[in-house]
Amino acid sequence: MQDRYGIDQYVRSIPDFPEKGIIFRDITSVIQNAEGLKKSIDGMIESLKDVEFDVVIGPESRGFIFGMPVAYALEKGFVPVRKKGKLPCETIEMEYELEYGTAVVEMHKDAIKPGDKVVIIDDLVATGGTIEAIIKMVESLGGEVVKVQFLMELAGLNGREKLKGYEMDSLLIYDGK
Amino acid sequence: MQDRYGIDQYVRSIPDFPEKGIIFRDITSVIQNAEGLKKSIDGMIESLKDVEFDVVIGPESRGFIFGMPVAYALEKGFVPVRKKGKLPCETIEMEYELEYGTAVVEMHKDAIKPGDKVVIIDDLVATGGTIEAIIKMVESLGGEVVKVQFLMELAGLNGREKLKGYEMDSLLIYDGK
Repeated sequence: MQDRYGIDQYVRSIPDFPEKGIIFRDITSVIQNAEGLKKSIDGMIESLKDVEFDVVIGPESRGFIFGMPVAYALEKGFVPVRKKGKLPCETIEMEYELEYGTAVVEMHKDAIKPGDKVVIIDDLVATGGTIEAIIKMVESLGGEVVKVQFLMELAGLNGREKLKGYEMDSLLIYDGK
Repeated sequence: MQDRYGIDQYVRSIPDFPEKGIIFRDITSVIQNAEGLKKSIDGMIESLKDVEFDVVIGPESRGFIFGMPVAYALEKGFVPVRKKGKLPCETIEMEYELEYGTAVVEMHKDAIKPGDKVVIIDDLVATGGTIEAIIKMVESLGGEVVKVQFLMELAGLNGREKLKGYEMDSLLIYDGK
């Protein structure tokens, strides 16, 4: 485990949830603690301190939780990525693979302008499938992904391999799945 | 309309969405603009400046968007309220009425301790049904709701009547539905 901001102490790890052999890493216990919340967001801000960017993107719904405070503190805009059918204006969508089947995410087309430098923020990177789909959407709108920032990483699921070629940071890295 | 923080200029109002006669007030246009995002969160922080409280609660998923930056800036914890089945530990749940049928929200039981002073934050108050359900959960856990804070209010839907007896503020109030 790598835990350079002392955040693991706030994570509730639940064995065999949602199924046997999986350790669920609960972030609600991190953010319901004022100190855990502050360390998480301060850590992300620190990790982004030398990154020049225009906008934060976060996927529904835990990407909203970590992306919005960072956008607010650094005085950037925030673009939500949502499951299909929830955004009211013209969208771009992207399908990605789940363990069983596929899912579709979308974002507003006018949310990213050509040349925009984008930071993607989420709570957890596992296989990296959702983030890869978001990167494709950003790039097809002419934006540039300058960093992907996570609170936690499950290193055993190889998300880092899938996101190779992009600058990536996780505040807390667990070795397993 | 009341718009004391100049936020209406960022709201995309979409007539006849999702059905005829409804004006949909889109908040994604507010937050994708760095200035709109900052004014929204600064306005909520200003509105809470004389309120003593311990924790922010926000319902899935737009309550996460506005609740988390306020919690971060004021160094409080944040408790997510989610749709049924998404939280991993022991929960309390509450049913509430929709226009057609009912829905259920839940929160972790250990998230609120007896005596906790709570601020509930959401993007929009319409009929107030979700917020009323959250207030019931907080009170049944021994917490006290000291303020409910919204970005927008649709005054024609009488949420203020349903939440009577609780301190309530909306940064931007539209007269209609």
